[in-house]
Amino acid sequence: MRSRRLAILAEGKFGVLTSKTAACIIRYQPGRVACVIDSTRAGLDAEGVLGFGGAIPVVASINEALKFSPDSLLIGIAPRGGVLPEAWRGVVLAAIENRLDILSGLHTMLGEDAEISRAARERHVAIWDIRKPTLPDGVSRGLLKHRRGRVILTVGSDCSSGKMTVAYELVEFMKARGVKAAFVPTGQTGMLLAGWGQAVDRVPGDFMARVVEDLTVEALAGSDVAVVEGQGSLVHPAYSGVTLAILHGCWPDVMILCHQPTRTEIEDFDIAIPPLQCLVRMYELACEPLFPSRVVAVGLNTYDLDEARAREAVARAERETGLPADDPVRWGSTRIYESLEGML
Amino acid sequence: MRSRRLAILAEGKFGVLTSKTAACIIRYQPGRVACVIDSTRAGLDAEGVLGFGGAIPVVASINEALKFSPDSLLIGIAPRGGVLPEAWRGVVLAAIENRLDILSGLHTMLGEDAEISRAARERHVAIWDIRKPTLPDGVSRGLLKHRRGRVILTVGSDCSSGKMTVAYELVEFMKARGVKAAFVPTGQTGMLLAGWGQAVDRVPGDFMARVVEDLTVEALAGSDVAVVEGQGSLVHPAYSGVTLAILHGCWPDVMILCHQPTRTEIEDFDIAIPPLQCLVRMYELACEPLFPSRVVAVGLNTYDLDEARAREAVARAERETGLPADDPVRWGSTRIYESLEGML
Repeated sequence: MRSRRLAILAEGKFGVLTSKTAACIIRYQPGRVACVIDSTRAGLDAEGVLGFGGAIPVVASINEALKFSPDSLLIGIAPRGGVLPEAWRGVVLAAIENRLDILSGLHTMLGEDAEISRAARERHVAIWDIRKPTLPDGVSRGLLKHRRGRVILTVGSDCSSGKMTVAYELVEFMKARGVKAAFVPTGQTGMLLAGWGQAVDRVPGDFMARVVEDLTVEALAGSDVAVVEGQGSLVHPAYSGVTLAILHGCWPDVMILCHQPTRTEIEDFDIAIPPLQCLVRMYELACEPLFPSRVVAVGLNTYDLDEARAREAVARAERETGLPADDPVRWGSTRIYESLEGML
Repeated sequence: MRSRRLAILAEGKFGVLTSKTAACIIRYQPGRVACVIDSTRAGLDAEGVLGFGGAIPVVASINEALKFSPDSLLIGIAPRGGVLPEAWRGVVLAAIENRLDILSGLHTMLGEDAEISRAARERHVAIWDIRKPTLPDGVSRGLLKHRRGRVILTVGSDCSSGKMTVAYELVEFMKARGVKAAFVPTGQTGMLLAGWGQAVDRVPGDFMARVVEDLTVEALAGSDVAVVEGQGSLVHPAYSGVTLAILHGCWPDVMILCHQPTRTEIEDFDIAIPPLQCLVRMYELACEPLFPSRVVAVGLNTYDLDEARAREAVARAERETGLPADDPVRWGSTRIYESLEGML
């Protein structure tokens, strides 16, 4: 994985939140990115669009992308529902024609598409359907109840609230301080960054908790601390099942609540995001009958606030929850790490 | 579906709770059952094993089953994890050889098994993998927020606590009183009884709530009341994700909490089942940020208690929750129905 040189398809969507996968890889592993394809922003560079990522070029088409010598095409955005838009079929086929491997996080399995898989076979290129689950041989067995090592889970007020980022930043921070910590990816972006994991949102319901159990057990085999990337939110009508399965699958010692302060509603559902202290209580209550766990810190995503407003948002979150709050992307993971020191 | 004459494979497991699917079909649609295969109980009849079901014979093998002229073999038990035990392969192949259609609720898709599917093609028999999901074209859209009609959901303290039975009994009871009610099946047994539905535990995480939304919308198109069959429990570590997805997928007006009074722990997990009033609060809190919903009655499964103890259990449940409680299989659905009258 890490050696690949990616052309990332983010057509019409390249941006911090609108192309989460593209933005995260550019933030954490920019050396792997040859270019981004988005005809609506062609001519700009990553820095100009995202505010980070330097001179990585944005180009208008797959043909222009080829000039930057990618060896793989990554479908870097996930349309609602995860289906392949028909307009992208030509892009994927052109990439295959030019011997690029295909990495896709769509729900549509490109490897099962007759035309695309035939083309891939003819050109000897690989298709990695990142979301394709590997099914376990049974359901969760609660193995983590009696474990060696600590488990931390990031949970959220909504989708795209920073759960993957806070988890990834925290692991990097701990590793730099000599803590044997492992990042446990449960979604496609985390999997692309870490080179392992499973997209739990694609796993059949009965097996979700088990898949998370297996990933966490694997992480703890070589580490003292597993930091599990949460998904969705307990208050998101479409994704709450995935959220709870991850929570009950990894039996966290503690949780970190992630939130974007400018967000007040669950997108598309006209549902108000509850106050942070309510969310803290909901996540703790959801664990209580199974295992004791508490929220120990709040991770904020303040990318769309200026410095002063970001500091205000942190102070407000601390007031509301009585917990340390911070934006690790903006100011580093020190405060969040300190909230864990009693348990490490 | 309803015209089929089933030989039900329940090898080593035929019983009220150990072969839930077999027991429910025999309870509600005994005319469809030719015989049950369980070599450990061969020679008995359904009445002798279950306490209901009359003279439906229990036989030792598929060969003996053929004497009762079934037209289909139903895999009537679900081993943990849902995989086909190797010992049953021969039974399935022998059934196909004798031109029986195969109905299976296993997670292993028999239609994707090379040997079994080849045999089925050769003999022109059908394989219905009941759990095989039909994927929707996207995720939940919260359509039920603005609906015509009422939605009732059965929720539980554990697996196999009576959610399907309470829902099914209630719908039959309402229909007999002229209420336009529809049963919404979310698991294989309910699907076999009703001839439609989806096994939500097999649906990929992201699509679970949408599948429940679609089923409920479909039910309300022809009915005034949809009674949705819940799955699992919010406190079951392996299945809680499915439970919450159904809860948030169908936006119930009210819930009925189902419980087996003799059960004190979540099987295999060493987790105490919380007091009923805690469960009531958990289910209500899980909805609160999205929509108001409350538990209005408790459905008890007292099949393993004598009459006096069953009455005691009902009285205790009523004391603990302040809600009407009843065992609809034992005493009918009157009290549970009355708890709904304010909303119908």
